[in-house]
Amino acid sequence: MASRADRAVQPDDVRYMRMALALAKRGIGLVEPNPAVGCVIVRSGEILGRGWHKGFGKAHAEVDAIQDCRNRGNDPAGATMYVTLEPCCHYGKTGPCTEAIIDARIGRVVVATPDPSAQINGKGISILRQAGIAVDLGTCQQEARFLNGPFFKFVQTGRPWVIAKWAQSVDGMLAYTEPAKRYLTSPAARRHAHILRRRTQAIIVGINTILQDDPLLTPRPGKGRSPTRVVMDRELRTPLGARILAQIGTYPVLICTTASAMERKQQQAERLRGMGVELLAGPAGQEDLGFILQELASRGVQQVLVEGGAALLASVLDMGLADEIHVYIAPMLLGSAGKARISLERAGQIAIYKSRVRQIGPDAWLWGLTESGYGLCVDIPKAQT
Amino acid sequence: MASRADRAVQPDDVRYMRMALALAKRGIGLVEPNPAVGCVIVRSGEILGRGWHKGFGKAHAEVDAIQDCRNRGNDPAGATMYVTLEPCCHYGKTGPCTEAIIDARIGRVVVATPDPSAQINGKGISILRQAGIAVDLGTCQQEARFLNGPFFKFVQTGRPWVIAKWAQSVDGMLAYTEPAKRYLTSPAARRHAHILRRRTQAIIVGINTILQDDPLLTPRPGKGRSPTRVVMDRELRTPLGARILAQIGTYPVLICTTASAMERKQQQAERLRGMGVELLAGPAGQEDLGFILQELASRGVQQVLVEGGAALLASVLDMGLADEIHVYIAPMLLGSAGKARISLERAGQIAIYKSRVRQIGPDAWLWGLTESGYGLCVDIPKAQT
Repeated sequence: MASRADRAVQPDDVRYMRMALALAKRGIGLVEPNPAVGCVIVRSGEILGRGWHKGFGKAHAEVDAIQDCRNRGNDPAGATMYVTLEPCCHYGKTGPCTEAIIDARIGRVVVATPDPSAQINGKGISILRQAGIAVDLGTCQQEARFLNGPFFKFVQTGRPWVIAKWAQSVDGMLAYTEPAKRYLTSPAARRHAHILRRRTQAIIVGINTILQDDPLLTPRPGKGRSPTRVVMDRELRTPLGARILAQIGTYPVLICTTASAMERKQQQAERLRGMGVELLAGPAGQEDLGFILQELASRGVQQVLVEGGAALLASVLDMGLADEIHVYIAPMLLGSAGKARISLERAGQIAIYKSRVRQIGPDAWLWGLTESGYGLCVDIPKAQT
Repeated sequence: MASRADRAVQPDDVRYMRMALALAKRGIGLVEPNPAVGCVIVRSGEILGRGWHKGFGKAHAEVDAIQDCRNRGNDPAGATMYVTLEPCCHYGKTGPCTEAIIDARIGRVVVATPDPSAQINGKGISILRQAGIAVDLGTCQQEARFLNGPFFKFVQTGRPWVIAKWAQSVDGMLAYTEPAKRYLTSPAARRHAHILRRRTQAIIVGINTILQDDPLLTPRPGKGRSPTRVVMDRELRTPLGARILAQIGTYPVLICTTASAMERKQQQAERLRGMGVELLAGPAGQEDLGFILQELASRGVQQVLVEGGAALLASVLDMGLADEIHVYIAPMLLGSAGKARISLERAGQIAIYKSRVRQIGPDAWLWGLTESGYGLCVDIPKAQT
C-alpha cells in the first residue's frame, strides 16, 4: 500500500493542487491581510466544486468550494479536497473550515502547506485526522508559500513584508535634474504600479520625495485598500500644502519624525496634527526604518511598499529589509540630465531571485525576490507528513 | 478612377506587403551587407509564389518568388508583385530583377520603398514603368526601412550602422569589482547576444575590455559571418597572449592605435603584425572613433557592434554615433561589488525609441533605436509616387 508521502506526489494531486493555486491567485489584492487560498473538490476525476477566498471577511476557500458543490447539485461526501493552505480550526470572521469539511463528509484532504498562525499550526490537520479524514500534506508547498509570502513572513516573524519599488532610467537614475519633468516612465507603467499600492496596507516614502515630487501616494483608481501613507521626516519638513495631506480621511498619513523635531517645531507639529496627521517620534538614525516597520506590524500591517527616494531605498536594501523588488526601467539614458541613483553601501551585491521581466508600454518591468523574500517563500524545507 | 496613391493604401496591398516583409525578415543575419528583401506574387487573392533573399550572393527576392511560381506550376503573367525594396536594374552578383519581372510579364508591382543605391535610386521603377508595368510606391515604407536600417544608412550616408551593446546590473554596473566573476548575465542572454555578432561585420572594443575580460569576440556557434574584431588601443597594450589573437585566420583583428605608440613600441608592433594583426594609426583623442568608423565604411562594413567597455560605450553614445542599442540587464544590484558605469558627459538625455523588452533567462533584454537610428528608419517622409 502506498504511504501518505507517496500519495502526496501523485501526478493528479499536483494537477488539482495547481488548479487550486490558480483559484487562490484571484484573491490577491482583495484578501489581505488574510492569505489567498484556493480549493478544488474532486471525485473520480470529476471536479465537483471549486472555491477561493474572495475578499477579507468573506467565506474561506473550503467553505466556498463546498457551497459550490451544493450549488451544482453535487454531494461532496467521500470526495477529495485540494486546498492550498491548512484549513482553519478557530472561530474568526467565519466559522472553522475543519467543521465544514467534517460536516460535508469529505473523504481525503490534500493540503499544500501548513498554516503557521498560532491558532492553527497543525491543529487543523490534527482535527481532520481525528475525525477519520485522510490528510496529505506538502503537495506544491513551495508554490503555495510563494503565493502568500507576505502572510507567511508576518505570521512567522511578526514583521511586515517589504516591497521596494522604483522607476529608473537604464543608467540607474531615479529622477530628472530638471524638476518640471516628473515622470521617467509611461502612463501604462504608472498604472501598473498602482495595482501594487492596492495590495499593500502602508506606503513609505522619504521626505525628499515629498519635497521634490509632491506625490499623492494613493492607489488610483481608488477602489480597494486604503493604505496608510508614511513619511520618514526626521526634521518635520512636510509642507502643510503637500498633496499627501489632501485625502487624509480616506488614506491616513503618519509622519515618522523625532522627539527633538516635534519640540523645536511645535507649531508645525500642531498644525499637522490639526489636519489629522499622526506624528510618531522614532529614534534618530537608520533605526528609524526598523522602528517604523515594527510599529506598522503592531498595527497589523502585513505588506509595506517603499516607494522612494533613492536614499530610503538604499537604506532598505542595505539593511536587508526588502523582500520583494519591482523596478520599472524607462528606455533612456539620462546621464547628466538625471540624478538620484541608488547607492548601496554594503559590501556584497543584492541578487534578485525568480526574476520576471515584462514590457509595459515602452518600459521594462523587472520583478523578483531578495534573498530574504526568497528564503521565506521558496527555499524552505518540504513539510513533514 | 483611383490614382496610384489611392491604390497604394488599399488594405489588400498592406496585407500582402506585410507578408513580404515577414519573408524578408528571414534573411536578417544572412544577407548583409545586402538588404533583406521579401516578395509575394498574387493574382485575384491567390498567392502564386513567395520569395526572399536567402543569403549574400544568392537570388534576389523577386527572382526567388518568380521561380517559386514556376515550381508550383503557376504562371505569374499579369499578376501583382509585392516587393519590400525597389527591384534592382544592374548586373551585380545576380542579373537585374527588372529584367526578370518584365520577362515574367508581371502586371503590377507594389514597392515598399525606393532603393537609394547609386545604381538604382528610382531607375528600377522607371524601367518597369517604361515596360508598361504599373508601379505603386510607398506601401509600408516605414516598416521596410525599419527592417533594413543599416543598409539605408550605409547607402545614404556612407557611414556604418552602429550598434551599442552591453550587459549591466539594474544599478548600471557593467562589471564586478572582483575580476574572477566575469559574467553578469546568464548563458541564455549571452547566447542571444551572439546572434548580434553574426549580424555585424565588425566588433569594436576598448583596450580595457581586452585587458580585463580577455574576450574572444567571435560569434558562437561560429557559422555565418566572420566579423573583424577591432581594438581601440592607443598605447598598443594588447597582450600577445590575448584570446582575441587566437582565431585570427577566421576572424581578422585590427588594432587602432597611434603612430607614436607604433614608434615607441616597435617590437610589440612587429610581433602583433607577425601574428597577422593589422595595425592602423588613428588620430589621438576621441576622433579615433570617427576615424575607425570611416575606415571600416571604406572597407564596405555596413554594421558595427560596439561591445564595451563603459568608456568606449559612453564615447559612442556621447558623440551620437550609436543607431541601435541592446542592453542586457541582470537581475541584481551590485553596489560596491560593481564598477564601470556608463557616464554620459553630454547635457541631454539619450532616448531609446521603439523599445522592445523581453525576458531572456533571468535577465531583461531592452532593445531600441537612438534618435539617429530612429530618424534613419522610421521618422522619414513618405515616398512620392
